[in-house]
Amino acid sequence: MSTQQLFNVAVVGATGAVGEQIRRLLEERNFPIASLKLLSSARSAGSVVTFKGKPVTVEEATPESFRGVDIALFSAGGDVSKALIPHAVEHGAVCIDNTNAYRMDPETPLVVPEVNIDKISEHKGIIANPNCSTIQMVAALKPLYDRYGISRIIVSTYQAVSGAGASAVTEMLRQSGEVLAGNDSNPAILPVSSLPVKHQIAFNVIPQIDKFQDNGFTLEEMKMIRETKKIMDDETLEVTATCVRVPVVYGHSESVYVELKNDFDVEEIKSLLSDSPGLVLVDDPSGQQYPLATDAAGKNEVFVGRVRRDLSNPRALNMWIVSDNLLKGAAWNAVQIAEYIAIPQR
Amino acid sequence: MSTQQLFNVAVVGATGAVGEQIRRLLEERNFPIASLKLLSSARSAGSVVTFKGKPVTVEEATPESFRGVDIALFSAGGDVSKALIPHAVEHGAVCIDNTNAYRMDPETPLVVPEVNIDKISEHKGIIANPNCSTIQMVAALKPLYDRYGISRIIVSTYQAVSGAGASAVTEMLRQSGEVLAGNDSNPAILPVSSLPVKHQIAFNVIPQIDKFQDNGFTLEEMKMIRETKKIMDDETLEVTATCVRVPVVYGHSESVYVELKNDFDVEEIKSLLSDSPGLVLVDDPSGQQYPLATDAAGKNEVFVGRVRRDLSNPRALNMWIVSDNLLKGAAWNAVQIAEYIAIPQR
Repeated sequence: MSTQQLFNVAVVGATGAVGEQIRRLLEERNFPIASLKLLSSARSAGSVVTFKGKPVTVEEATPESFRGVDIALFSAGGDVSKALIPHAVEHGAVCIDNTNAYRMDPETPLVVPEVNIDKISEHKGIIANPNCSTIQMVAALKPLYDRYGISRIIVSTYQAVSGAGASAVTEMLRQSGEVLAGNDSNPAILPVSSLPVKHQIAFNVIPQIDKFQDNGFTLEEMKMIRETKKIMDDETLEVTATCVRVPVVYGHSESVYVELKNDFDVEEIKSLLSDSPGLVLVDDPSGQQYPLATDAAGKNEVFVGRVRRDLSNPRALNMWIVSDNLLKGAAWNAVQIAEYIAIPQR
Repeated sequence: MSTQQLFNVAVVGATGAVGEQIRRLLEERNFPIASLKLLSSARSAGSVVTFKGKPVTVEEATPESFRGVDIALFSAGGDVSKALIPHAVEHGAVCIDNTNAYRMDPETPLVVPEVNIDKISEHKGIIANPNCSTIQMVAALKPLYDRYGISRIIVSTYQAVSGAGASAVTEMLRQSGEVLAGNDSNPAILPVSSLPVKHQIAFNVIPQIDKFQDNGFTLEEMKMIRETKKIMDDETLEVTATCVRVPVVYGHSESVYVELKNDFDVEEIKSLLSDSPGLVLVDDPSGQQYPLATDAAGKNEVFVGRVRRDLSNPRALNMWIVSDNLLKGAAWNAVQIAEYIAIPQR
């Protein structure tokens, strides 16, 4: 009989959409927890949630909250991560940050376990969780990168509203009801809650996720471009992204064109994808089977289909990649990293 | 004072989603009509619609319907076009066909007026209207093709449900109401009404429009690839398409990556697009202005925005193209062609 090491765990942003999934996954995975601290802003502090059948009171996150914490999972926005993570690190916690705060910091590993789990050993107290749309794409492309090499990726996304938070989901459902009733949608949150102009998302698609940069790309598009290169550890990789919000609750879909460096056989690629950990191949055109957001919702895996050789470039492949943006795109990837820290031999 | 020539006009599929728009546009444009025949299947025949304030009884389309007809606009499906157009041509009508029946026929010009109106003079009784998703893309790319040359196009579409007919729109709205009420969506029409497998479109995206071909592409994707080359009259053009249905009522959106043959200046491209007939540039990132399906609905123009130089390939451009699929994508393009036939000097 072996004794299992137990950990003092903190979840920051515990009442948010991702925090809720992190709590559920820690329960479901039977994570080796000695003590659990659920932390939030002052506004949500005091609320009581159930963890493994027992009530846990959510506390306000402060610099002192991390005393004695071994592993802290952050999903409360970049500003909270920037303010609190240095304190958590000082207190000796390993921080898994689900925000954009440290992703491009050269000292911070940016980790998708199926792609670069070896990088976690390089951490200096912080491990960054990539952007949701990046995670599912690199998870699906990594087996192809290793076998054939990749020179270029051109991706257009179809991103679910839950990526903008639970309030954006409520807003989309409200708008949908209004439009069905013949009323105005009165958009109030999307595309970007902190920006002045609002657009209807119900029965519409919006080609803006996050703020525009001077180069005409949005921050979401730049995240996909920069993070893909960092995770693949290849600055020569050419990546282009167009990120679009669609009226879907859970599950980002991606139309991906990828140029490989070496010849390939499409059937061999399908075998490779279906044999890779964390990936599920759903690719049966005659049976009309391909990944769908509604099917991926609630699942941890990345679903891949519509795999076909490009007609104009025999070295290029087109594919369709779908995953639950709150799970593999956020909470599950973070909990996976936490498991590798807690149980390194797994 | 000039006397205007008047035409005997027939609309086949007059009660369908596109036929309804054709009727509206013929009224609105004050098309020079001597007599109007509204034709349909036996099932819809006998219904009465109003044209310019007067009731018109819809008649069943038969080979004899086209006796004396000068211009016939077909939007009743490929099988109807194949069965009736040869008779209409024999009776001397010029047929503008909105179906896939004759588009790739080498004898039939495939026309988008802003791109290749000169081709209509080559017709032998039939002029084909391209696929909706193709029309808006080539209309937006033609000015770039002429000024800089285009070597490659990679497009991912976000296509409205009205492209699958009025019944598909009813179905999507019904499904949306069911999902909002917490019920099953019970999909019955999409992705392809004639195929057995159905998928939910409410709060989902479906990467299948029309049937799959042996090469793994759908027929819709192959239409975009083949038709673009034919309309641009350039078989060397490399085109890749991924066509996706989204829960939008009217208006196809397209994420387009295009490689130009010559150097360009982004501001010059924006001027070129905004000065081109039929195009409207909506491109103000700081003001969060870009084309949206909900804004394009009900309008004849093609809207272009998010124009930006690619970061990995300085000869490439990314852009976002939106247009009402029932108007420029179908009825308006067909009525434009009819106007060029009726009023060649325009």
